[in-house]
Amino acid sequence: MADKLKFAVIGGGSWATAIAKMLCVNQKEICWYMRNEVAIDHLKSYKHNPNYLSSVEFDTSKLVLTSDINEAIQYADYLIFAIPSAFLEGELSKITVPLKDKIIFSAIKGIVPETSLIVGEHFHIQYDIPYYNIGVITGPCHAEEVALERLSYLTIACGDPDKAKKVAENLSGNYIKAKISDDIIGTEYAAMLKNIYSIAAGIAHGLGYGDNFQSVIMSNAIREMKKFIKKVHKMKRNINDSAYLGDLLVTGYSIFSRNRMFGNMIGKGYTVKSAMMEMSMVAEGYYAVKSAYKLNQGYGAKTPIIDAVYQILYEGKEAKAVFKKLTEELD
Amino acid sequence: MADKLKFAVIGGGSWATAIAKMLCVNQKEICWYMRNEVAIDHLKSYKHNPNYLSSVEFDTSKLVLTSDINEAIQYADYLIFAIPSAFLEGELSKITVPLKDKIIFSAIKGIVPETSLIVGEHFHIQYDIPYYNIGVITGPCHAEEVALERLSYLTIACGDPDKAKKVAENLSGNYIKAKISDDIIGTEYAAMLKNIYSIAAGIAHGLGYGDNFQSVIMSNAIREMKKFIKKVHKMKRNINDSAYLGDLLVTGYSIFSRNRMFGNMIGKGYTVKSAMMEMSMVAEGYYAVKSAYKLNQGYGAKTPIIDAVYQILYEGKEAKAVFKKLTEELD
Repeated sequence: MADKLKFAVIGGGSWATAIAKMLCVNQKEICWYMRNEVAIDHLKSYKHNPNYLSSVEFDTSKLVLTSDINEAIQYADYLIFAIPSAFLEGELSKITVPLKDKIIFSAIKGIVPETSLIVGEHFHIQYDIPYYNIGVITGPCHAEEVALERLSYLTIACGDPDKAKKVAENLSGNYIKAKISDDIIGTEYAAMLKNIYSIAAGIAHGLGYGDNFQSVIMSNAIREMKKFIKKVHKMKRNINDSAYLGDLLVTGYSIFSRNRMFGNMIGKGYTVKSAMMEMSMVAEGYYAVKSAYKLNQGYGAKTPIIDAVYQILYEGKEAKAVFKKLTEELD
Repeated sequence: MADKLKFAVIGGGSWATAIAKMLCVNQKEICWYMRNEVAIDHLKSYKHNPNYLSSVEFDTSKLVLTSDINEAIQYADYLIFAIPSAFLEGELSKITVPLKDKIIFSAIKGIVPETSLIVGEHFHIQYDIPYYNIGVITGPCHAEEVALERLSYLTIACGDPDKAKKVAENLSGNYIKAKISDDIIGTEYAAMLKNIYSIAAGIAHGLGYGDNFQSVIMSNAIREMKKFIKKVHKMKRNINDSAYLGDLLVTGYSIFSRNRMFGNMIGKGYTVKSAMMEMSMVAEGYYAVKSAYKLNQGYGAKTPIIDAVYQILYEGKEAKAVFKKLTEELD
């Protein structure tokens, strides 16, 4: 399966680690950038990432590890970004080498706070990367299950199907099935929106709503997602495909989801600030809901769940009252 | 809200108990049939069903309790059946009073094994009940959460919208929202099919597949359900409404679901017979998959999940091998 394409993974978290593991099955060598030099030293010495998916053992002879993002960019044809969207601009600002001819795949699933754009749009608008060189890697996929080598399905979207296919081939393995899609905008919006719906699911749980209501939220969420994405980018897509509905479910029903956990704390009465401090992690949906809400001011899709989460997180409205009202709008 | 309509609940299980509880909010009196006389005596003395949802306290002055199904049928205008489909014919065979002018709502969600029909069709074909007097009460709704008075949404389907509306009004309350539908066939098939998909989810779990694959099964299941129901009864419906997708999710993701538990045991290597004995309960999906599979021989919808469950439960094929093949057909 190994070919001459050169891949670099940008990021040191669990999803980046999972992607590095998948690529190593098919590539003789990959470059892996992470800013944490202690983690790099640990990886070199002990063959695993000390902080994320630490059960995964790497053949370090295959890894070109670097804490210099420019080295990673020069090394690779295909760059796979897997860092929290809130840190993307900070990392990109370090780049001094040409980025323009690189093929960039985002595994980020969020909104870039500085520009309120999804990652693909951000690279296109801010960095002049043409859409045929931009792609998205989407689930439904918990990185933790990749570590356990449990069967997972990925969707690889790119304007250029050949590039989607190449990435899919290089991520596939006996426990990874990767299909391709041309819906680069829709899959990325779905991956972003699902984090908002996960926050909503968490808030509901924190407020004491049960599984019956959870299923009502999810069934309303996928209908809302369909309407929203249709406004953003109208094309023929089946919203019940794994990349949309599956991705929503794996996050919305996961007790490990950061977004759901964040929502749960809000539902239980934490303030936004204290919930964020307590988690010491970024809940992507926090930024996503702001952008989605603002964006939808122009689109005018009916999005009661997004509106509810926005009101709670950004307008300081009481979760209990907002959800009481929301329950009247769902069916 | 109380009106002069008279309701009888047929059944002594958890879903029957939940329905009796909902009706008691809106009615001054209801009739409740259960064959277990010990349970009736217990209810009369201690105000709760000893076997199911025993935390629910009833105002017994509102209950006309009987172990004679004929008494219940004579009492009521509206009969709500909530017994396992496998026991339906046995109960109906006891009836000696006229059934023909009664309005019959099914809360059964299964296939009648003797006729391989869904319950509405069974009443129509075997008992000459016209479709405008037949309705369906469907979730997503775990009875256990009704006991806890957690917000739940029901869908009440009937060919005659006035009757659907009346039942909806009489089930609604501060923790129950009931909407109506005219898709009596589709909602009942959905409620039946979801049990098959829950068995599939259970088998996958038993075989060691994880949450990533679970979400892929669910996203394929709803697409498969849509195709199947479209063949059975073509009409305009949104398969992502709560009565279809919500109902699938609340069962498929529930560790309390009997169908999922049954599938889990099969996945872990129990034989069908020993899984059934071990559970000492009926998994509705066991009968449902046989009917759905046979029915689809005529329809020819692409239903790889139904086919897989059928092969495992009725053709003695090994779950591991069948699911290995199934994973190739999903996406």
